[in-house]
Amino acid sequence: MIQGHGDDRYRFDREIRADFSSNVYAHVDLEPLKAHLRARLDDIGRYPEPEPYSLEKALAKRLGIDPAAVCVTAGATEAIYLIAHAFKGSHSTILAPTFSEYADACRLYAHSVAPVSVLLPKKGRCAENRPPLHSLFWLCNPNNPTGTVIPKEQLVRAIEDNPETIFVIDQSYGFFTQETLLTAKEAIRYPNVIQLHSMTKRYAMPGLRLGYITAHPQLIEKIRSVRMPWSVNALAIAAGLYLTQHPDTARIDLTALLTETQRLRDRLNAIPGLTAEPTQTHFFLCRLEKGRAADLKQRLAEEYGILIRDASNFEGLDEGCFRIATQTPEENDRLVEAIRNILKVNV
Amino acid sequence: MIQGHGDDRYRFDREIRADFSSNVYAHVDLEPLKAHLRARLDDIGRYPEPEPYSLEKALAKRLGIDPAAVCVTAGATEAIYLIAHAFKGSHSTILAPTFSEYADACRLYAHSVAPVSVLLPKKGRCAENRPPLHSLFWLCNPNNPTGTVIPKEQLVRAIEDNPETIFVIDQSYGFFTQETLLTAKEAIRYPNVIQLHSMTKRYAMPGLRLGYITAHPQLIEKIRSVRMPWSVNALAIAAGLYLTQHPDTARIDLTALLTETQRLRDRLNAIPGLTAEPTQTHFFLCRLEKGRAADLKQRLAEEYGILIRDASNFEGLDEGCFRIATQTPEENDRLVEAIRNILKVNV
Repeated sequence: MIQGHGDDRYRFDREIRADFSSNVYAHVDLEPLKAHLRARLDDIGRYPEPEPYSLEKALAKRLGIDPAAVCVTAGATEAIYLIAHAFKGSHSTILAPTFSEYADACRLYAHSVAPVSVLLPKKGRCAENRPPLHSLFWLCNPNNPTGTVIPKEQLVRAIEDNPETIFVIDQSYGFFTQETLLTAKEAIRYPNVIQLHSMTKRYAMPGLRLGYITAHPQLIEKIRSVRMPWSVNALAIAAGLYLTQHPDTARIDLTALLTETQRLRDRLNAIPGLTAEPTQTHFFLCRLEKGRAADLKQRLAEEYGILIRDASNFEGLDEGCFRIATQTPEENDRLVEAIRNILKVNV
Repeated sequence: MIQGHGDDRYRFDREIRADFSSNVYAHVDLEPLKAHLRARLDDIGRYPEPEPYSLEKALAKRLGIDPAAVCVTAGATEAIYLIAHAFKGSHSTILAPTFSEYADACRLYAHSVAPVSVLLPKKGRCAENRPPLHSLFWLCNPNNPTGTVIPKEQLVRAIEDNPETIFVIDQSYGFFTQETLLTAKEAIRYPNVIQLHSMTKRYAMPGLRLGYITAHPQLIEKIRSVRMPWSVNALAIAAGLYLTQHPDTARIDLTALLTETQRLRDRLNAIPGLTAEPTQTHFFLCRLEKGRAADLKQRLAEEYGILIRDASNFEGLDEGCFRIATQTPEENDRLVEAIRNILKVNV
């Protein structure tokens, strides 16, 4: 595991008042969910189902797919590690820069790992003597940390042109874009597509650890075979069932959030020495012309109680890169002012 | 994973009113812990620490050991899978009959697995041509499902006589015996001992998934290296911190519980056709002279709303075996009456 993921507020003595560091949009009304969990606290006294089948069934119903095509996990992270495990020793190509856990999980399970920067790498990249058991192609869509989305048609073409490659598509941020994505119902028809979904991100509840995989039942069966029992906590299952039954809980006005994202980017781009890159979701990458993102992060935390994500530890990014997840207009304006002050620029 | 673990109440339509099927003593006052969690529900909105270091530090302090000798896990189950993973491809000897997850986890990580019935198997059991990377010896103390405890002196002798074997000692039920066990502080001095601990069992909160490993820091480092980030849910961490700071929460009168266990065994042994085996903890194994434990379980659930653990799927046990975890005297008496009725015996 790399050091320096987002939401590392526990590293700082000063209280963090605004958190731009994780890709979670924090301003979601979790009260109905919390009220439900408060009423379900007795669940801590009982074992969860060894395999969270009732939640898999509920999710399948909502998605209009077979429960055998769903595997619930302790966050998208467990999903990543289960897939790496199920296909251990494979050749994995990873569309970079992206979330570091794909490569970490693949290395842990003896994959050969090749980062690439284009959707379809040339064939025959595997340098090993023995042919790999499988070829996996990992991508995050919308991508973390860049916020970019691969157009659906381009992705479908790649999937259909490469039936021998298993595409692992992390759609953890799928809710947070207005671009058209491959739905779970469409994707499970392909025998070479695995999708990851995060309830953590959509419902701003990263503390609970809840995600799921959707794929063709044959792929799900292979993934379930390496899952340990009781990996998903009873309260996470209770939350998942509640949210599946009450999909209108924790509403997010996505149009407003994405509009605000563009306003924030425009304001940041007006600061000389800083570039806020284009995005198709609610988070985006920034680059400093001079200086280190680590130093900016440190000063923002200590002097302003503001947390950003130093993105220099993403493979392929340099020390000037950081990531911002849009929050409320007031918080966003405070961020802009703070960065402007630190970069000591007069406008 | 085997089918048919304990606490499988979700399989039955009838409401279960008394549960003897899991090794959790259900009559513990969880109110203070639940009140704490109610007040900490905001934690679901934040990422847990990627590695639960603050809880590792708190547990280490309470145990009087180095935090580098503690690894917190999502229940003892994650601990078992992490150990099997860290020592993948080893030769594992398992003291049977015991909890099936040791063998399942070992097989998942390509161990050769040999069940044995004595503490020290003869050397050279490994039938494979290549020498294994490591030799592991797994035991549960007190043992699930038998309730027996290996005397400390005998265990220490085995550990010292076999420095090339790593002893994995699951002490999940360590609180529930009055026999002397190896403490964490004693055990971490050995470079060949790994201990598993369960907060789930002690505090009757199996829904939260919280356990930990203690071992020599070099072993812990190896185990941590295969751990995925954020595997422990924020509420489980909050519960662990609370219980570490308030060790008197959820008191259990162990002497009374073990005395009641012997009373229950005596009453069960008075039913012809049934043997309740000796135990040194609060659960024990029963054997039917005739008939299948599965049928008895089905009738107890459907006719009496009582759940027991069919133990016939433990390797080495037969179809007449079931496991009972002692509950309140009233519930225990109801169990005795129900079994007596079903076995149609007049006393």
